[in-house]
Amino acid sequence: MASESQNWVLMVTAQTPTNIAVIKYWGKRDETLILPVNDSISVTLDPAHLCTTTTVAVSPAFQQDRMWLNGKEISLSGGRFQNCLREIRTRACAVEDKKKGIKITRENWSKLHVHIASYNNFPTAAGLASSAAGFACLAYSLGKLMNVKEDESQLSAIARQGSGSACRSLFGGFVKWIMGKEDNGSDSLAVQLADEKHWDDLVIVIAVVSSRQKETSSTSGMRESVETSLLLKHRAKEIVPKRILQMEEAIKNRDFASFSQLTCADSNQFHAVCLDTSPPIFYMNDTSHRIISIAEKWNRSEEAPQVAYTFDAGPNAVLIARDRKAATLLVQRLLYYFPPNSDDLDSYIIGDKSIAKDAGINGIRDVEALPPPPEIKDNILSQKYKGEVSYFICTRPGRGPVLLSDNSQALLNDETGLPK
Amino acid sequence: MASESQNWVLMVTAQTPTNIAVIKYWGKRDETLILPVNDSISVTLDPAHLCTTTTVAVSPAFQQDRMWLNGKEISLSGGRFQNCLREIRTRACAVEDKKKGIKITRENWSKLHVHIASYNNFPTAAGLASSAAGFACLAYSLGKLMNVKEDESQLSAIARQGSGSACRSLFGGFVKWIMGKEDNGSDSLAVQLADEKHWDDLVIVIAVVSSRQKETSSTSGMRESVETSLLLKHRAKEIVPKRILQMEEAIKNRDFASFSQLTCADSNQFHAVCLDTSPPIFYMNDTSHRIISIAEKWNRSEEAPQVAYTFDAGPNAVLIARDRKAATLLVQRLLYYFPPNSDDLDSYIIGDKSIAKDAGINGIRDVEALPPPPEIKDNILSQKYKGEVSYFICTRPGRGPVLLSDNSQALLNDETGLPK
Repeated sequence: MASESQNWVLMVTAQTPTNIAVIKYWGKRDETLILPVNDSISVTLDPAHLCTTTTVAVSPAFQQDRMWLNGKEISLSGGRFQNCLREIRTRACAVEDKKKGIKITRENWSKLHVHIASYNNFPTAAGLASSAAGFACLAYSLGKLMNVKEDESQLSAIARQGSGSACRSLFGGFVKWIMGKEDNGSDSLAVQLADEKHWDDLVIVIAVVSSRQKETSSTSGMRESVETSLLLKHRAKEIVPKRILQMEEAIKNRDFASFSQLTCADSNQFHAVCLDTSPPIFYMNDTSHRIISIAEKWNRSEEAPQVAYTFDAGPNAVLIARDRKAATLLVQRLLYYFPPNSDDLDSYIIGDKSIAKDAGINGIRDVEALPPPPEIKDNILSQKYKGEVSYFICTRPGRGPVLLSDNSQALLNDETGLPK
Repeated sequence: MASESQNWVLMVTAQTPTNIAVIKYWGKRDETLILPVNDSISVTLDPAHLCTTTTVAVSPAFQQDRMWLNGKEISLSGGRFQNCLREIRTRACAVEDKKKGIKITRENWSKLHVHIASYNNFPTAAGLASSAAGFACLAYSLGKLMNVKEDESQLSAIARQGSGSACRSLFGGFVKWIMGKEDNGSDSLAVQLADEKHWDDLVIVIAVVSSRQKETSSTSGMRESVETSLLLKHRAKEIVPKRILQMEEAIKNRDFASFSQLTCADSNQFHAVCLDTSPPIFYMNDTSHRIISIAEKWNRSEEAPQVAYTFDAGPNAVLIARDRKAATLLVQRLLYYFPPNSDDLDSYIIGDKSIAKDAGINGIRDVEALPPPPEIKDNILSQKYKGEVSYFICTRPGRGPVLLSDNSQALLNDETGLPK
């Protein structure tokens, strides 16, 4: 080995956000390289509320590549992990830390094993794109550890091979995944359209919807759509290219009316393609439909749209309010229709709790006292759906990956390289 | 008046079936004439279980056109009623009944008023295309009363102006509504592809699904789809024409595998277009989705498809079983997942009750004793959804309109011309 001692452990810890697509990715033209059939655009979510933290470590003492997810060891044998690891290793550069007596040459990397520990600050099972943040964090942290010179866009093309939407988590703010044209996928990567400060009025409320249904995985779902949906190709070739241009324009101009119209229409069209698949795929349930109706009714009662909605491969609603005022009105509506099952409001509205406070919601009594929204003319028709939402997460557009230099935030022990 | 006495009442009573589209009609190119954007194909349902009976009467004593639906007087002022009445009147021919002393010349018809009484043998509110049977029966019975010489196809073009899908109820068996090319709609009419005896293996089970949602009417729904769905035009121009040819072939050959695949795919695509509409339209609910999953899972576990499903503008499922054996297995599955809320099985399975008997279901105990279907490997995952279905109707493909000559079946009194 390149170093004199076999006892050193070199570590890097990074934090990477998740993201929500506003122009959807659905359908691959290459399953192995994960190359999509159309461009997509996403908003990065504030890592303060939804993120993955990953520590990667290398040591001559490690006998094999190992990984722990949320404290539990998982297999790294899957092709997607192996692709990411291989792609990063081929780009590794020499690293030297004289103080610790570490010297790794470019060639050494192929012989050294890594330990990876990853942790999501939100429930993995909630269907909140944990794999996007996870693979982005893996590519980013390994890239830093191995002194990879490639920029975020180039790293995004590696993260993409772990999980398509992961490539969009290499940047904060507003991100476009360019589908690319090359067969090897080298030009299928993410670029930042604008950072999170460009449009910082937006407030995001996620409704985590209770579900009894077992969902189709997005990997098999999009494969079946590509194979059987007669509408998917038309969407990918004729509709999305125009929408991408319109969405870029809407983001550039902070034009919420266009942003909202495009976001909702594209979410609905993605789910339409799922329904056009054989057998049909249903990700939205009755609760998802109710949330859409609430948003549509409210938007139509106002002079301009107040909220956009979008749903990924599951029933959870991601609601984007035009500004803080709209967000408080949105939270009032959501809590009116979906009061919590218990009195524990503190675990029912998580993330940025100040939105609920601004909405005048400090306890369960405030929820009970909420009047029906004014757009409901016939109060008899307004029903409440207690228990249909598990909880709400209030957040906002956020920054891209960052390194965490504070060793206390590392998930691996810096002497053993094992989970703390 | 043409007759010597003013006291006569001339009456005709007819019975007309409802129908279920297997290639869907969704979108008009002309709202007034009700001209569709694509051809559609339907199966006529047995009038023994689902039909409209209409009595039309004419008398010089009548002061105005009047109509009663299910015993309650309704307004005839709507454009759709007026269009049908006008179109039939312009085609009226002379009628003479020497025994009763009735003589009506061609010219008289424009001065004579009609009374119309119509009755559905199924709940109007159940979302079972009552307007299709209703307008078909109106056109058919008025045509008979007024001695109109036009054939069923020509009458269908009149019924079409009352309710688009009504034109397909002028025939039994398997029916195609040709969209036509003419601006005046003269070639937008129904033709029979095959009568009900051509493929009499098929058994139809309708699940009337309980719903809390208020539904979008199909008239406004299809208008919004035409205006906002980017997928609708592609469907109408590129996809449906091919499907129509394939469906005609499947019906001709009694090829259930193709029939089932096309029926399910076209139902799903119609609902996909609804979802692609702004604001999105949801006709299917979680119960509808569950029924689809049950059918899909079962079909995939067998060598060949056993059942096709199709949904109109509401949550009710129309299930078409390949034969009687498949129908009994279907009923077992449906009752296993959707047991009745009460012990009253007799009002839970209506229509052709012999299917349930053949399935070994004679009472609530038999329902409770049903084992999970063999295609459910993991019994823990099999849930029951009591109360989600209001009732089931067992039926089959059926005949077209008929005249009821037995006066006891007339809905109007033959002396007063008023409802019995």
